[in-house]
Amino acid sequence: MTRTVNLQMRLVTRPRGVPQLADFAPVRAPVRRPGDGEILVCNHYLSVDPAQRGWANDEGNYSAPVPLDTPMRALAVGEVVESRSPGIGEGDFLYGWFGWQSHCTTTPDAILRRVTPSALPLSANLSLLGINGLTAYLAFNGLGKPQPGEHVLVSTAAGSVGSFVGQLARLAGCRAVGLTSSAEKAALARERYGYADMIDYRSENDLPAAIRRACPDGNDIFFDNTGGAIADAAIRSMRRSGRMIQCGTASIASWSPPPTGLRPEREVLTRRLHWAGFIIFDHVAAFPEAADELTRLALSGALVYDEDVLLGLEQAPAALAGLYEGRNRGKPIIRLEAAT
Amino acid sequence: MTRTVNLQMRLVTRPRGVPQLADFAPVRAPVRRPGDGEILVCNHYLSVDPAQRGWANDEGNYSAPVPLDTPMRALAVGEVVESRSPGIGEGDFLYGWFGWQSHCTTTPDAILRRVTPSALPLSANLSLLGINGLTAYLAFNGLGKPQPGEHVLVSTAAGSVGSFVGQLARLAGCRAVGLTSSAEKAALARERYGYADMIDYRSENDLPAAIRRACPDGNDIFFDNTGGAIADAAIRSMRRSGRMIQCGTASIASWSPPPTGLRPEREVLTRRLHWAGFIIFDHVAAFPEAADELTRLALSGALVYDEDVLLGLEQAPAALAGLYEGRNRGKPIIRLEAAT
Repeated sequence: MTRTVNLQMRLVTRPRGVPQLADFAPVRAPVRRPGDGEILVCNHYLSVDPAQRGWANDEGNYSAPVPLDTPMRALAVGEVVESRSPGIGEGDFLYGWFGWQSHCTTTPDAILRRVTPSALPLSANLSLLGINGLTAYLAFNGLGKPQPGEHVLVSTAAGSVGSFVGQLARLAGCRAVGLTSSAEKAALARERYGYADMIDYRSENDLPAAIRRACPDGNDIFFDNTGGAIADAAIRSMRRSGRMIQCGTASIASWSPPPTGLRPEREVLTRRLHWAGFIIFDHVAAFPEAADELTRLALSGALVYDEDVLLGLEQAPAALAGLYEGRNRGKPIIRLEAAT
Repeated sequence: MTRTVNLQMRLVTRPRGVPQLADFAPVRAPVRRPGDGEILVCNHYLSVDPAQRGWANDEGNYSAPVPLDTPMRALAVGEVVESRSPGIGEGDFLYGWFGWQSHCTTTPDAILRRVTPSALPLSANLSLLGINGLTAYLAFNGLGKPQPGEHVLVSTAAGSVGSFVGQLARLAGCRAVGLTSSAEKAALARERYGYADMIDYRSENDLPAAIRRACPDGNDIFFDNTGGAIADAAIRSMRRSGRMIQCGTASIASWSPPPTGLRPEREVLTRRLHWAGFIIFDHVAAFPEAADELTRLALSGALVYDEDVLLGLEQAPAALAGLYEGRNRGKPIIRLEAAT
C-alpha cells in the first residue's frame, strides 16, 4: 500500500435528464483500509455507460439512485491491492461496481466477474467483455432467438452495444439494418459492424419510409436502445411473431412528465409480437460463459470492438454527457494512472 | 336434403369502426350442393365475436377483410348433411368457419375442430369450447405462465374471455382482479368468475389509483382485451418480469388516424416485462386437447360458462354491435332453426 489518496468523481447535484458536468465534482478522499471480509481495489479502467443517466436520476428506475456526494456509480476493472476476503488475493483482477474513483474498498458482492487473463487487453473487460458486449450477446441471443435468414433492425447501431449486435446478427446468418445519427457512423457500421444497410435517421424526413426502403421484407427482430419515434416506426416494420428487445430508451430526454407516442397495442396483437425488456444485471450468472465466447470470437477475428479511451478521471463527466450527443467513437473508457 | 334455401346475413357496406345494423342485410340464397371434396354443413349455432369488427374492417388486420355482399365471416357449430369429403360423414358435428348463414358448402379447411359428443350442450362449442374459452386457456397458460401466489389483472373481466381467465387464474392459485364497465358486471365477476376484486372503471376518476388500491402488490400478469387508457394504467402496475398478454384492443374505437398514448418503452425495460400478442387461430392444433381439459373442468364444476342465446339469424348484427356497448350478459350465440 503506497497510495493513501482516493481520487473520486462524486455526484453532487441530482441531474434532470442527461447528467451534465456541473452535476459532478472531483474530491480527494483518504483510502479506507479494508475491514474483515473486504477488499481494496485499485481501479485501472472506468466505464462510461448510458445507463448511468438512470442511476443518477431519481425518477424511479431498476436501481436506487446514486446518493449525492458519493462517487458516481460505475463499473470498473481493477486490481486487488489488499484483501481480507477469503478466495480473493492481491494481484487478482476484477470487474465490478468500483465506481468513478481511483480506489474502492468494498465487499465481494460488488464483483460481477473475475477477469481471467487472456490475449485481449484489460480495457476490453469494459467493452467487448463488459456490459456492452455482454448485453448484445445475451439479449440478442436470449430474447432475439435469431434464425438464419431472419431480418434484424438495430437502433444506435454504431453505439457501444449496437456495434456488437450487427456483428452477432451477421454471425447468426441474419441480415441486419441499423439506425444511427450521422453518415460517418453509418459508414462505420456498414464497413466494420456487420450491417447490410444503414439509415441515418437525422437525414430522413420520413423514417417509416426509410425503414421500408432499407428493410423491404420487414423485420423479425428489433433491438432497441432508443425508444421514441424510432420505436414507433420500427414496430410497424415487424413481421409476424417478431421479437422486440428493449435494451434502452436513449431517445427520450425525460420521462417526467410521461411522454406520449403511437399506441403499440394493435401491432403487438396483430403481428403477434414478443416485446421484452432486458437489464443486463439480471444475467450476471451468465457472464463468465458469455465472456469466454466473446473472447473466442474476438481472438478468431470474427468480432471487432472499438474503444474511445480517455486518460484521467476528470474526463468522465464530459464523456458521459457526450454519449447522449453521439460524440463518442467506440465505447468510452477512462484510463487511470494505475493502468499506465 | 330437404332444405334448398340458405338464409344468409351478408356484410353489405364496409364498417367504419364498430359494425352497425345497416352494414348487414339478410339474403335468401340457394343452397349449393357440395362438389368433389366438399361438405354441406347445416348450422345450429352461430358465434358473435369482438374479433368480427376487425374481420369486417379493411384497416389491415391479421386476416383479409370479409368481401362485401358475402355472408359475414363467423364461427359456427353445424351438422354435416352431405359429404363428398373422405373421413367426414353425414351427422358429424363440426366447429369451423361456416359464416352467418343457415347452410355452408365448403372444403374441410374451414373446420377448426370436430365436435365430440360430451355431456355439455352443443352451444358450449361456441363459448367454453369455442375461441373464448380456448383463448383464455391457451393464452393465459401459454403466455401468462401463471404460478401459484401470483397476481393477475384482467380487462373486460366479465366478458366472454375474461370470465374464463378469472376462473383459470383462481384454479392456478393466483389472485385475480378484473376491470369491467358496470357495478352489475363487477358483482357477477366477483361472485361467479373467480375474481378476488373488481374495478368498475366507468365509476373511477383515477384509474391508476383504483388499480393500486385493488392490486396493492402489483401484478405479475395482465390479460388485456382493451388496450388504451386501461393498458396505460395497467402496465404501470406490473411487477418485475411481468407478462402482458394482448388479446384484443376493444377500447380503441378506430386505428385510423393512429391513436396515441403513454409511451410504454420505459416500463417494458425497467420492469423487464414480456408483452406478447395472442391470436387464437395460430393455435388450432392445440384446440382438441384444450377443449378436452375445459370440458373436464366444466363437468367437474370447477369452471362455469354463461351464454346469451338469441334465436334467429336476424339477431346477429345487433348482438355484434351490443358487444362493444357491453350490453351482453354472457357470450352471445345465435341459435338457428336446425337446433330446435
